[in-house]
Amino acid sequence: MAGTNSERQLLTEGPVIILVEPQMGENIGMVARAMANFGLSVLRLVNPRDGWPNEKAQAAASKADHVIEGTKVYDTLEQAIADLNFVYATTARERDGFKPVRSPVVAAQTLRAKFQAGEGSGILFGRERWGLTNEEVALADEIVTFPVNPAFASLNIAQAVLLMSYEWMKSGMEDVGSVPFQAMSQTQSTKEQLFGLYDQLEEALDARNYFHPPAKKPKMVDNLRAVLSRRAFTEQEISVLRGVISSLDRFSRKYPRGRRPPVDVKEQSEDDSSAE
Amino acid sequence: MAGTNSERQLLTEGPVIILVEPQMGENIGMVARAMANFGLSVLRLVNPRDGWPNEKAQAAASKADHVIEGTKVYDTLEQAIADLNFVYATTARERDGFKPVRSPVVAAQTLRAKFQAGEGSGILFGRERWGLTNEEVALADEIVTFPVNPAFASLNIAQAVLLMSYEWMKSGMEDVGSVPFQAMSQTQSTKEQLFGLYDQLEEALDARNYFHPPAKKPKMVDNLRAVLSRRAFTEQEISVLRGVISSLDRFSRKYPRGRRPPVDVKEQSEDDSSAE
Repeated sequence: MAGTNSERQLLTEGPVIILVEPQMGENIGMVARAMANFGLSVLRLVNPRDGWPNEKAQAAASKADHVIEGTKVYDTLEQAIADLNFVYATTARERDGFKPVRSPVVAAQTLRAKFQAGEGSGILFGRERWGLTNEEVALADEIVTFPVNPAFASLNIAQAVLLMSYEWMKSGMEDVGSVPFQAMSQTQSTKEQLFGLYDQLEEALDARNYFHPPAKKPKMVDNLRAVLSRRAFTEQEISVLRGVISSLDRFSRKYPRGRRPPVDVKEQSEDDSSAE
Repeated sequence: MAGTNSERQLLTEGPVIILVEPQMGENIGMVARAMANFGLSVLRLVNPRDGWPNEKAQAAASKADHVIEGTKVYDTLEQAIADLNFVYATTARERDGFKPVRSPVVAAQTLRAKFQAGEGSGILFGRERWGLTNEEVALADEIVTFPVNPAFASLNIAQAVLLMSYEWMKSGMEDVGSVPFQAMSQTQSTKEQLFGLYDQLEEALDARNYFHPPAKKPKMVDNLRAVLSRRAFTEQEISVLRGVISSLDRFSRKYPRGRRPPVDVKEQSEDDSSAE
């Protein structure tokens, strides 16, 4: 899915990602990569098992060097969140407690609002094997949990960070339907162009006695036009379709149906059955 | 993030995931795991580089055995999608073409509508290094692309599958804010209980000449009550707070401030500065 445009500005705003006692360097690297994809860049580690820096993390980060190089390590979770105003704890398990539980969409909207208000925010992710302790969850303001299949809930921390980073990115877009690029600009054909297609096709079919018996012709034409008008063609598409009809109408086959084409005529269509 | 509840029903509905010429078994396994988390289960492979079955895929699937065991292999993409009605192609790059480009949210809504109408649907994911060819994209009905950071677009196929699977799951929920579990049921305290807290605290403070000078007392009380009423306390929380005030009000310190507690009195609070 390589689509990096190095001339565009690197997005580096948003909540701090805090990993509590992460064990695998590969996971830390995948977390950095996930963050970078969605414009997050501040990563903090509480007591990483294998120390820091970590070669496996760097390898797995896939060029998210700006995240890895800026990563800071803390002895305690309290220190890691001391300068933040608002913190989410991620958890897959129901906890006894009074903290509000939010979906990723709602959590991302809250984080966006905090960001716009100039507040520092963060998201806590627990250990690979058993997540966050109740005491760690208690340090957060609210809980965020993912809408996973109850019978197979097995998100790893890099996947969980990916989903929160993705929702963060989406929370900054005006419309969740917006996309970074669009199909080529398309203008629907004029009706005159569409009628030209009808005329050409119907004449070519008439010449082959397609509309048979004659009494059924009006209904058959209606049906044909319904097929051709169900989707609005562009001028260019009409042009392509008319070329196809011309080819079928004007030229005879260069070799019998069912045979493979000889090399010198392979540009021709192999099948002219579209008239039926 | 372990939270699997094996007694709940395994969700196995939804679009087919089709990987075109995947190279790394680990990625296929992570794809299966991502799918299972969000209730998808039908995986198809077109010409996997290392053949099938694949031990590395099984290891990386993290118990998503039902997905791995049901995976089917095809020689061509055309065969892999032959029985489907509607297909998305995922791509990170802008393509020359007329296909509509959708965000994951909109694509998931479309897939949900197709599913509810009984149509078979699928999502194509390309090779790790260079995605789908233009000819492969042309076989799809529409394009879906991810709102990534333009300066760092580096989603791998397992991450891309995770995001689409997650949006599929969300598209089936009535409210994107819904969560699988909630905080413990909380009933806001009655006003009488709140006023009891005010009375107790203000009396204890009065007894210490906190409201000084007396002319400022009404304003100080207002401020104090504003702090205590900004968030609606539950009956249980009021009870906890009243216990704290009682402890501070009724009992004298057992050791001077700033010293560590002797072992036998460590249950007592270490700091009584809350009156200021």
